[in-house]
Amino acid sequence: MSLVDLDQIRDAAERIRPWAVRTPLVPSPWPGLWLKPESLQPIGAFKIRGAITAVSRLDPVERARGLLAHSSGNHAQAVAYAARVFGVSAHVVIPDNAPQRKIDATRALGAGVELVPVEQRFTRPEELRLATGQPMIPPFDHPDVIAGQGTVGLEIAEDFPSAPGRDGPTGRDVATVLVPVSGGGLISGVAVAIKALVPDARVVGVEPELAGDAAESFRLGRRTPWTAADTARTVADGLRTFSVGELPWQHISALVDDIVTVTEQEILDTTRRLALEARLLAEPSGAVPVAAYLHHADRLPPGPTVAVVSGGNIDPALLARLVGG
Amino acid sequence: MSLVDLDQIRDAAERIRPWAVRTPLVPSPWPGLWLKPESLQPIGAFKIRGAITAVSRLDPVERARGLLAHSSGNHAQAVAYAARVFGVSAHVVIPDNAPQRKIDATRALGAGVELVPVEQRFTRPEELRLATGQPMIPPFDHPDVIAGQGTVGLEIAEDFPSAPGRDGPTGRDVATVLVPVSGGGLISGVAVAIKALVPDARVVGVEPELAGDAAESFRLGRRTPWTAADTARTVADGLRTFSVGELPWQHISALVDDIVTVTEQEILDTTRRLALEARLLAEPSGAVPVAAYLHHADRLPPGPTVAVVSGGNIDPALLARLVGG
Repeated sequence: MSLVDLDQIRDAAERIRPWAVRTPLVPSPWPGLWLKPESLQPIGAFKIRGAITAVSRLDPVERARGLLAHSSGNHAQAVAYAARVFGVSAHVVIPDNAPQRKIDATRALGAGVELVPVEQRFTRPEELRLATGQPMIPPFDHPDVIAGQGTVGLEIAEDFPSAPGRDGPTGRDVATVLVPVSGGGLISGVAVAIKALVPDARVVGVEPELAGDAAESFRLGRRTPWTAADTARTVADGLRTFSVGELPWQHISALVDDIVTVTEQEILDTTRRLALEARLLAEPSGAVPVAAYLHHADRLPPGPTVAVVSGGNIDPALLARLVGG
Repeated sequence: MSLVDLDQIRDAAERIRPWAVRTPLVPSPWPGLWLKPESLQPIGAFKIRGAITAVSRLDPVERARGLLAHSSGNHAQAVAYAARVFGVSAHVVIPDNAPQRKIDATRALGAGVELVPVEQRFTRPEELRLATGQPMIPPFDHPDVIAGQGTVGLEIAEDFPSAPGRDGPTGRDVATVLVPVSGGGLISGVAVAIKALVPDARVVGVEPELAGDAAESFRLGRRTPWTAADTARTVADGLRTFSVGELPWQHISALVDDIVTVTEQEILDTTRRLALEARLLAEPSGAVPVAAYLHHADRLPPGPTVAVVSGGNIDPALLARLVGG
C-alpha cells in the first residue's frame, strides 16, 4: 500500500475550496498553543473535507446511483452534505446507540438514515453495497478521504508563520501538531502534509485513555484493535472506533511521532475551558488534543503547538452541565 | 468633522495584522446568511481591532505614560490587551454594575481596574486624564478606533466572493451586512469599507428594542440619546451605551441604510440557536444581528447577507440556562 502524497492533498484542497471553510489559526488563551477550529465547518466537523474529496473523485455515473455510508457520527453528516453538494442521494447506516443529535442532523441534511443494532454496523452496509451497487464512502480507510482530511495539515503548514499571537506573528514554522485519533484518517493526512512541508515538526496523536487502541498499537509497533465495548466507554463519542484503519496504520507507523492519552476528566475539563476561556464550542472528541496540551505538556515536544479542534457537535445537556457547574 | 476613509482602514488592517485574527466568513445553517465570528479574537470580541489601531498610532512618548480607558465590557479587555502588546500599563475605569466575567478578564490581562458607581463612569476617567496626562483610548468616538473596527468591513468585502457556501462559492459581492450598534464605532467603520468597495451593498444596524436609541435617532434624523436606566434593561450588555458618539453619528447619517430592532426573547433565542445549530458561542450583543435575520427577514434587504457576530463573552450561567432549556 502506498501512502498518500502531498500532491493528492493539494488536489483535495482545490476540490473542497468551494464548500469547506479555511479555518483560521486562533491564538488560544494558553501560551504557545493555537487552535484550528474545525467546529466552524458547515457540518461542525473536519469530516466534510474527506467526504467531499472522495465523492468528487467518484465516477459520475457511479455517483449518480447515490451514496452509501456507515457512521456513528460526523461522517454521516459529512456524506449527507456531500450528497447534497453533488445532487445525489445518500443512505447512511447508523448504529442505534449513536447520539440522537447526530442522527437528527444527518436526516436534516436530507439523507436516508437506517438505524441498526451495533453488531450490524459493518455487515448491513456491506449487504446494501452488494445489493444496490451504490458506492460506499468510507469514514477513514481510503486514500481520497485521507487526502481530504490532510488539507487540515496543509493549511496549518501554510498559515502558521503568519498567524497572529500574543507576541505578534509567530514568524516561524509550527513545532508540534496535536490531532485526535479514531480511525486515523485525519492524523494520516495531517502527517503527510506536515512532514512534507515542515520536516522538523512533530505530529502527535491524542486519544482518550478509555479508547487507547491507537496509542497501544503505536507502542507495540503493530495494529492492536480493542473491543467496541471497551472504546464505547469514553465520552468522546467521535473517537470510539476500536481500531485504526489499515491504510491509516501505514501512515501512522511511518510518519507519526507519538500518540498520547488523556483521561475522561481531562477531556470534560478541557471541553468546559474551551467554551469559557477560548469561546469555542468543542465536542469532547474535539477537545482531546487540547486536553493533552493543558494536562500533559511534559509528554509533548516543546515549541509552538497547534491543536486541531476537530468538531463542535456537543450534546446540549452535556454543555449545559459543564458550563453551569 | 470628516469621515474616516478607506485608506485609514487599510492602514489599520496593516497595524492589527500581527495581533488580530482574520476571521473567516462561515456559512450559517440558515440559507443566505454568513457569519463573521469576531468571538474568535484573542479577547473574544472585535474591540481588539480598534484598540490596537488607536494605541499603535499614539505618540510613543505619550503611550509610554500608560493608557487610560473606561468601559463596561469588551473595550476594557481590548485596551488591556493593546497595552500588553505595546509593553505599557493600562488603567481602566469600569462601572460597578458591569459583568463580573468581563471585570475579571480585564484584570487577568494585567490592567489596573478601578470600579466606580455608574454615575462616575465618565467623570472619573476625565479626572484621571487631567491628573496623570495619560492618553485616553475612547471606546468608539475616535477616527482611529473607527478605522480599526472598519477592518471587519474590509475583510467582508474582500472575502465574500470566494466564501464557501451550501451552493458553492458565492461568486458575487455581499448584498447586506448586519452590524450591532452601541456607540456606533463598529458600524461606522464597516459602512465606510463596504460603501467604498461594494457600493450597492446595504449596511443595516441592529439594536435591542430596549436600547433602541440609535434606531430612534436614525428614524428622527438626529442623535437622540436615551437614559442609561433605559438601555440598562437589555440582556445585551455590550449594547447598553445610551447614545451613539458624535463622529459615529456622522457616519451613520451619511452611510447606513437602516437600523432595526429586536426583542429580548429574539436575542436569547438566537444566542441559543447560534450555540446549538451554528456551534458558535455568542454573547447576547453578538447575537443581535443574527436575530434580525432569523426573526425580521421582512424588514431586511434581499440577497446574500453577512451578520457580524461581534463577541463571545457570554455569562456561563446564562449559556447553561439557554442550552439546557
